[in-house]
Amino acid sequence: MTLPRGATQIPLAGGASEVLAEEVPVALVYDGVTQAVMMATPADLEDFVLGFALSEGLIEAPSEIVRTEIVPQQRGIEARAWLAAPAGARFKERRRATTGPVGCGLCGIDSLEQALRPLPRAPRSGGAGLAPGAPARALAALRTAQPLQDATHAIHAAGFWAEDCGLVLLREDVGRHNALDKLAGALTRAGIAPANGAIAMTSRISIDLVQKAVTIGARALIAPSAPTALAVAEARAAGLHLIARAPSTETLIDYTAPERTEEDAA
Amino acid sequence: MTLPRGATQIPLAGGASEVLAEEVPVALVYDGVTQAVMMATPADLEDFVLGFALSEGLIEAPSEIVRTEIVPQQRGIEARAWLAAPAGARFKERRRATTGPVGCGLCGIDSLEQALRPLPRAPRSGGAGLAPGAPARALAALRTAQPLQDATHAIHAAGFWAEDCGLVLLREDVGRHNALDKLAGALTRAGIAPANGAIAMTSRISIDLVQKAVTIGARALIAPSAPTALAVAEARAAGLHLIARAPSTETLIDYTAPERTEEDAA
Repeated sequence: MTLPRGATQIPLAGGASEVLAEEVPVALVYDGVTQAVMMATPADLEDFVLGFALSEGLIEAPSEIVRTEIVPQQRGIEARAWLAAPAGARFKERRRATTGPVGCGLCGIDSLEQALRPLPRAPRSGGAGLAPGAPARALAALRTAQPLQDATHAIHAAGFWAEDCGLVLLREDVGRHNALDKLAGALTRAGIAPANGAIAMTSRISIDLVQKAVTIGARALIAPSAPTALAVAEARAAGLHLIARAPSTETLIDYTAPERTEEDAA
Repeated sequence: MTLPRGATQIPLAGGASEVLAEEVPVALVYDGVTQAVMMATPADLEDFVLGFALSEGLIEAPSEIVRTEIVPQQRGIEARAWLAAPAGARFKERRRATTGPVGCGLCGIDSLEQALRPLPRAPRSGGAGLAPGAPARALAALRTAQPLQDATHAIHAAGFWAEDCGLVLLREDVGRHNALDKLAGALTRAGIAPANGAIAMTSRISIDLVQKAVTIGARALIAPSAPTALAVAEARAAGLHLIARAPSTETLIDYTAPERTEEDAA
């Protein structure tokens, strides 16, 4: 049996074995500086290092990354990117501003003020919402297209879905934020604007996923489970359509719609 | 209706509302230095600031924290702890050693070397395993004792379960690592040694949860879904019993048992 990338077979007692998800430390290194170390699935790392830079606002356009390089090390993998000069200078300036006590869990951001970073505020999308039934169709398409999850049962996915095309791209990772970063990078490399469809995820929606989705210019975020209150507030303020499960009814609803609409859960 | 701590009611269009999980930036501050900012459930924060210090190895014994203080701020909450002098000096030394490019996702640890931090290596527990059926009973007990998850559908839990006593303590959080940290703090404050029972979690088991469980001296970690390969390797090396789902059979197995045993999933 050929295993999908990111899966590995481990021996068990008595000669048995199981296929499990690989998880390795991946250092995201920009202009030679380690910005973050993530425990991640060792696949699609070019997408990851590009997408992380976009979703965290380290760069404003993909062209600001001039080269990437994936370098296996003894205890993990370095995903390196080199920035074009203006972006590199901005990056160094930002780093100077955040020097001091190191942070964690929010990508190097180390104070409460910085944790809720300012996001672009778009007008509420309103009429630009998805067609009735579209979110459930997007989630259904996602569920049938996860080879690594099928093999290991420990993997999240982020997919890009469009009404006309179905599921266009999908990335999987042991971390849900990593899956979204990889999708962001993959979309960019494929020349697809995130605003031209919806991002569907397998996971709960917390604030960090909304922040990343807004920062890459997404229009809609769909998830099969309930969001946090902060994720809803941030999506509303930023004009991101957030379609997710309502705890009270277990159906999909658009938390950001000006009028209440209900989507049947698939 | 009285909402559990960590849940909040948000208005929807058309006069409807939903109860969702709160999520706030919590700064973990030791001796005045921010060690991490976590997006967390704003409950049990005294447990959190103590448990994080223990599970991340900032302190070696609970007595090294002499005072804690929870301070609401405009954009989040500070959970502050003051360390006894020897621990404080060690903490400052460790911080000096990790100065430089900041890290992320692994609690201030910013290099591949540091990502796989050395753990205490105990002899393989072997015969000290759980009784047949015990893991499934622990997970079943966990499922019936999660008020915040019942209300919001977006919350993980970490519980402490003992054969003689059932589910002794449980903590809930939007982040699975936060739930474990809160449980670690709660156990310590209750004077319960983690080695006297098993930790049951609602989430996937990745390396960070194994690292935390080993560091606080846990003997067994139980989860209803599949672990990563690295989590299994680390648990084996550290002598932690890891009981979790096998992807191939969907039953609970002890990944660390010298002989293969199978636990029926509840």
